[in-house]
Amino acid sequence: MERIIDSQLEDLKKLMLEMGGQVEKALQTATEGLLKKENKLLQEVHKFEMHINDLQIKVDNACLQVLAKQGPVAKDLRLILSIIKINTDLERMGDQCVNIAHLGRELLERGFTSSMQDIETMSTSVSKMVKGSLDSFVKMDLVAAQKILEMDDQVDFMKNKVYKDSTELMKQQPQNIQTLMDFILIARNLERLGDHATNIAEDVIFAFSGKDVRHGLND
Amino acid sequence: MERIIDSQLEDLKKLMLEMGGQVEKALQTATEGLLKKENKLLQEVHKFEMHINDLQIKVDNACLQVLAKQGPVAKDLRLILSIIKINTDLERMGDQCVNIAHLGRELLERGFTSSMQDIETMSTSVSKMVKGSLDSFVKMDLVAAQKILEMDDQVDFMKNKVYKDSTELMKQQPQNIQTLMDFILIARNLERLGDHATNIAEDVIFAFSGKDVRHGLND
Repeated sequence: MERIIDSQLEDLKKLMLEMGGQVEKALQTATEGLLKKENKLLQEVHKFEMHINDLQIKVDNACLQVLAKQGPVAKDLRLILSIIKINTDLERMGDQCVNIAHLGRELLERGFTSSMQDIETMSTSVSKMVKGSLDSFVKMDLVAAQKILEMDDQVDFMKNKVYKDSTELMKQQPQNIQTLMDFILIARNLERLGDHATNIAEDVIFAFSGKDVRHGLND
Repeated sequence: MERIIDSQLEDLKKLMLEMGGQVEKALQTATEGLLKKENKLLQEVHKFEMHINDLQIKVDNACLQVLAKQGPVAKDLRLILSIIKINTDLERMGDQCVNIAHLGRELLERGFTSSMQDIETMSTSVSKMVKGSLDSFVKMDLVAAQKILEMDDQVDFMKNKVYKDSTELMKQQPQNIQTLMDFILIARNLERLGDHATNIAEDVIFAFSGKDVRHGLND
């Protein structure tokens, strides 16, 4: 027999995944706008963020309702707590996509010719992490979630590379300091998106296994 | 008659405030180490962060227990949800204090003579925000929480000032690019600490009034 809470949890998951889809689109649009140097795309990112903000409040309210009316325990409760946390991460990810779009527009206004190869590599990895973390949630796939945690090292490495290369270049090309600074800040925003995807993967592991893998603990 | 949940909520609040106290100390120690150029203080910040991480897991587990065993509703439920969110903010604040300490140690190793007046002003404001947000929670003071939201604008203004002044100086003093970059990154970490204090104040307003003031909504 299906319990009332099961259909409510299904609705809740759908709402959260709609939000995740909007974050993926925001990141994709910001990155595409940046790499193709298309201001129009960068301007669109704000719309996704507004939608994400609306969904954040809906998800929180829906969680509150299920908690208050169903008094869930054990794995149902862990699932809801994970959704509450993932919700916060997704909202901040929306903010970071807006930051990237904002920095991208500054770059376009100023005009630049520097290579964005590293930013492109980084955003490809981060997109995979974001998509992968949401997929691991849908499929309750602990192995996939674990893989996201491992991918984060590569993104951190790339962020450090952008930082090191850009500060070196600043010394040789003081006229490009602003542009190189924007690259560093874009890389930092991408790295934070990766951190949030890592948080989501940790929440997936907690929701579906009960294991708390934060701070390097295994149980 | 006192309910069982009341004493459990009291314990939960105490645990969360212990964590908040550690965050205050971490920020104070990082800032003091930076301004007094004392490496020893900067090295201590990591210890606070480890304690904060331990407390984060304790707070989450305690919330899970109360939710599972007491099935709280209405204001009790809102309070627990707020604590779950504040817990996440406090943990990230610990990370940001560690970032500041790390950047500070880089600065000290390199040696520098630039003025840190703006960083000092900023960290004074941010400390007030962090302390104020935790106080507003203890005292259930909605007016005090509202004031924290207003203080955030000044911190953002200072972060932008540090960014603008430092990038200008980079052009004139390419030999100081690394130092100025560290100033920018310290200012960004301080600004994020201010953002988290703002999140805490929003959670206080939600916990004690039921009003959701995120994203500029008033109800």
